[in-house]
Amino acid sequence: MELVVIVAALALLEYTVFLLLAGQARGRAGVAAPATVGDPRYERHFRVQMNTIEQLVIFLPSLAMFAYYVSEPVAAGLGVVFIVGRAMYARAYVTDPARRGPGFGLTFLANVVLLVGGLIGAAVRML
Amino acid sequence: MELVVIVAALALLEYTVFLLLAGQARGRAGVAAPATVGDPRYERHFRVQMNTIEQLVIFLPSLAMFAYYVSEPVAAGLGVVFIVGRAMYARAYVTDPARRGPGFGLTFLANVVLLVGGLIGAAVRML
Amino acid sequence: MELVVIVAALALLEYTVFLLLAGQARGRAGVAAPATVGDPRYERHFRVQMNTIEQLVIFLPSLAMFAYYVSEPVAAGLGVVFIVGRAMYARAYVTDPARRGPGFGLTFLANVVLLVGGLIGAAVRML
Repeated sequence: MELVVIVAALALLEYTVFLLLAGQARGRAGVAAPATVGDPRYERHFRVQMNTIEQLVIFLPSLAMFAYYVSEPVAAGLGVVFIVGRAMYARAYVTDPARRGPGFGLTFLANVVLLVGGLIGAAVRML
Repeated sequence: MELVVIVAALALLEYTVFLLLAGQARGRAGVAAPATVGDPRYERHFRVQMNTIEQLVIFLPSLAMFAYYVSEPVAAGLGVVFIVGRAMYARAYVTDPARRGPGFGLTFLANVVLLVGGLIGAAVRML
Repeated sequence: MELVVIVAALALLEYTVFLLLAGQARGRAGVAAPATVGDPRYERHFRVQMNTIEQLVIFLPSLAMFAYYVSEPVAAGLGVVFIVGRAMYARAYVTDPARRGPGFGLTFLANVVLLVGGLIGAAVRML
């Protein structure tokens, strides 16, 4: 179980970095809370953070399901794909939002395989 | 355990559909990232997705707690109420945001019962 | 296990209160969905809710990891710090967003200790 727990923790550490970068960009741009718009660079960092939450909501439970019902090493591998895809996404988005596609696609693909695979694995186990 | 895992996975699949619909609405409306406003139809889809995250944050851990400490079949039934309520919510919101109340109420009610029931179940077990 | 489950449920109850306060502030201010801006007081409540999601994404899995691999009583104690920090954060933010620092710092500190501690605990167990 530890393998997949470590992958989950690394994905959360990556998210924590995005959160800190968004906070730093807010400070540098002088965007006062509660506003979340007003500076293009801050908005990009903020959207990287928010979109990562949007994906983590699928990722964490699906990683656990897939690891339990299908295969823990494969789940861990797909988790690494998720983490790498998110890094690509964040890097591209901050440079030019139009280039965020490949990183998004990689994380989304990992999520879909984990979720659908985990669902099928649980259904097969129940029958 | 599989019953409630399958219900959780179906709720995540429903959320994935909302995520794809929001992405499609962004493309059709031509709202360029990082903006999340500027087109009413896209904004509705985006808020359906975001509000679903706001509820999933309660739903997934509460479903697990209730299933473990109270009753797995009842947890699964409340999970189905959540999924149906979310579908009603999404359908109504995209048509007319003012009509989102019933679907929201249904998912929120399921969440409150799962959360408070799970909390009481865990407290009773500890004592 | 019940101790840490109860702490997690209390954090989710606190979040549910923030969610209800944001909904109430939306109604009072007359901000019609799908808008999430337009009234300073509503925007503050909305950001309290959203920022709490941003932190719960780290908190819930990290609490479980730390409790399982390191120490359940310490995890529960850090969970109480999280809950108290969030209450301070919400109270300060609604009064004056510039004063949200200490509450944010407390919850973020609890999260970092839970996440890094849980990661180290899992890595040590695997080796």
